[in-house]
Amino acid sequence: MSRRQIPVVLRWADMDAYGHVNNAVFAQLLEEARIGALTAEGSEEGGSMLDTGVLVGRVEIEYLVPLRYRHDPVLVDVWVSHLGGASFDLGYEVHDGRVGHDDVVYARAETTMVVYDLGGHRPRRLAEHERAKLTAWSGPPVALRRRREGRA
Amino acid sequence: MSRRQIPVVLRWADMDAYGHVNNAVFAQLLEEARIGALTAEGSEEGGSMLDTGVLVGRVEIEYLVPLRYRHDPVLVDVWVSHLGGASFDLGYEVHDGRVGHDDVVYARAETTMVVYDLGGHRPRRLAEHERAKLTAWSGPPVALRRRREGRA
Amino acid sequence: MSRRQIPVVLRWADMDAYGHVNNAVFAQLLEEARIGALTAEGSEEGGSMLDTGVLVGRVEIEYLVPLRYRHDPVLVDVWVSHLGGASFDLGYEVHDGRVGHDDVVYARAETTMVVYDLGGHRPRRLAEHERAKLTAWSGPPVALRRRREGRA
Amino acid sequence: MSRRQIPVVLRWADMDAYGHVNNAVFAQLLEEARIGALTAEGSEEGGSMLDTGVLVGRVEIEYLVPLRYRHDPVLVDVWVSHLGGASFDLGYEVHDGRVGHDDVVYARAETTMVVYDLGGHRPRRLAEHERAKLTAWSGPPVALRRRREGRA
Repeated sequence: MSRRQIPVVLRWADMDAYGHVNNAVFAQLLEEARIGALTAEGSEEGGSMLDTGVLVGRVEIEYLVPLRYRHDPVLVDVWVSHLGGASFDLGYEVHDGRVGHDDVVYARAETTMVVYDLGGHRPRRLAEHERAKLTAWSGPPVALRRRREGRA
Repeated sequence: MSRRQIPVVLRWADMDAYGHVNNAVFAQLLEEARIGALTAEGSEEGGSMLDTGVLVGRVEIEYLVPLRYRHDPVLVDVWVSHLGGASFDLGYEVHDGRVGHDDVVYARAETTMVVYDLGGHRPRRLAEHERAKLTAWSGPPVALRRRREGRA
Repeated sequence: MSRRQIPVVLRWADMDAYGHVNNAVFAQLLEEARIGALTAEGSEEGGSMLDTGVLVGRVEIEYLVPLRYRHDPVLVDVWVSHLGGASFDLGYEVHDGRVGHDDVVYARAETTMVVYDLGGHRPRRLAEHERAKLTAWSGPPVALRRRREGRA
Repeated sequence: MSRRQIPVVLRWADMDAYGHVNNAVFAQLLEEARIGALTAEGSEEGGSMLDTGVLVGRVEIEYLVPLRYRHDPVLVDVWVSHLGGASFDLGYEVHDGRVGHDDVVYARAETTMVVYDLGGHRPRRLAEHERAKLTAWSGPPVALRRRREGRA
């Protein structure tokens, strides 16, 4: 397994009236991490997917610990958690990662990415070379509590 | 079952470079609908919960049809889709609802709400009168595709 | 003078950690009011300008009273405060306007709108019929404190 | 003069349907640069001001060149452009600053910061040691076009 670890910078205005990074902002943090991971060195397929079109079909986020604004970026681990015919899932772990701190996991998440033919305005199947690249980067299912508890 | 139907107004800046309302914005739209539903007439318990503290523990959104900015608000149906001891789930359907249009469902979603003791900074159990109020407003599970397909 | 009065809906997440609608959000509220005013009945020129392209060249906002989230929309008065050859200024007053309340002005603002030839990717001059429409809707300069104090 | 130069990271969702970073987002970018500058090493007074309270009383932004999302942060130069009794102005220049690129200035801006007594809920005068610190960091007026053209 080879997770990619992407630093993502917070903004003061991400905090809401509770003084926590608002729940909707986390979907933006995932987006930044995803773009960083898909365009990282060695994943030119990801970059080309971003160009030809890959849409978010589903997002699931579990909020574990409230996150407050700070200067240091949070770290977001990203990996391929499922590979389908015309879509794939990405797993995420948003954590602290500052040196000299015990690591804290703020959230775990998963998004389903639908590979899209922007010209034809419709989903398309993953090509073999795309599947190969994504396989090299794949990891375990996301440890979402809801699933472990069998409620889903 | 008694869904509450809450109109939610879009903003032009909700659209991203694809010309669609960005996926992260949907979590904000759910938040507006939720506040509207919990503070609606006859749900003073909801309002008091908002005051004493209710946090988002989990969000799951399925994006079905791209949504573009328009003047008319979208309609968000909200209902109690699960009732637990110290938390409850809300189901959402974001749809068009304009007169003279065929209705379009843009997204289905669910959030797990954790009832929180703001003074004690920790989750607390739902009181009996809160459970009674939420029961009166409860409905079926959200028709999320992922679950029906048995992948979760 | 004929100001247009546009109701603009707030979102809970507009509030920052101070519990006030964040200063950057006001620029979004102005944007919503501007689109509402330019597309209002009888201003089809405005609508056509939005289609052919009108960009924000400048924004100036004075914050007078902190604004908190509430269910009722704020009212934003909008008028043409200056008419140039290839641009025009819009004046704004963001105020309370709820019945039974003393009116409160939260902010005054002005934006310079540059009329743009989207095909040619460059500013263009206002046509005579556009100037006529905008003139009918024009009003006084915005009562910005800074200018009255002669500091600008 | 000693400008502080603060890198500020963009987000993909900052772009609107025109494919440009939305005008309202610039006020957020200024906020990030301001917090970075006020908490920079050697400006502990700034940090303490952030704690005791400093509010945005006014913002003025001139948009010069459309900005698109990119991985590299933009650079925001920040300096004290005016020092008053109970407030001060900050000047900003948002520019490209990437090595090997001709520098591009995307926007120039100014904010009026009101020093606030959070306990007393009202503006307060700057202390002498605060004025001394801010003076060491002061620079010229912001080169806003509007002022040079004498329209303000």
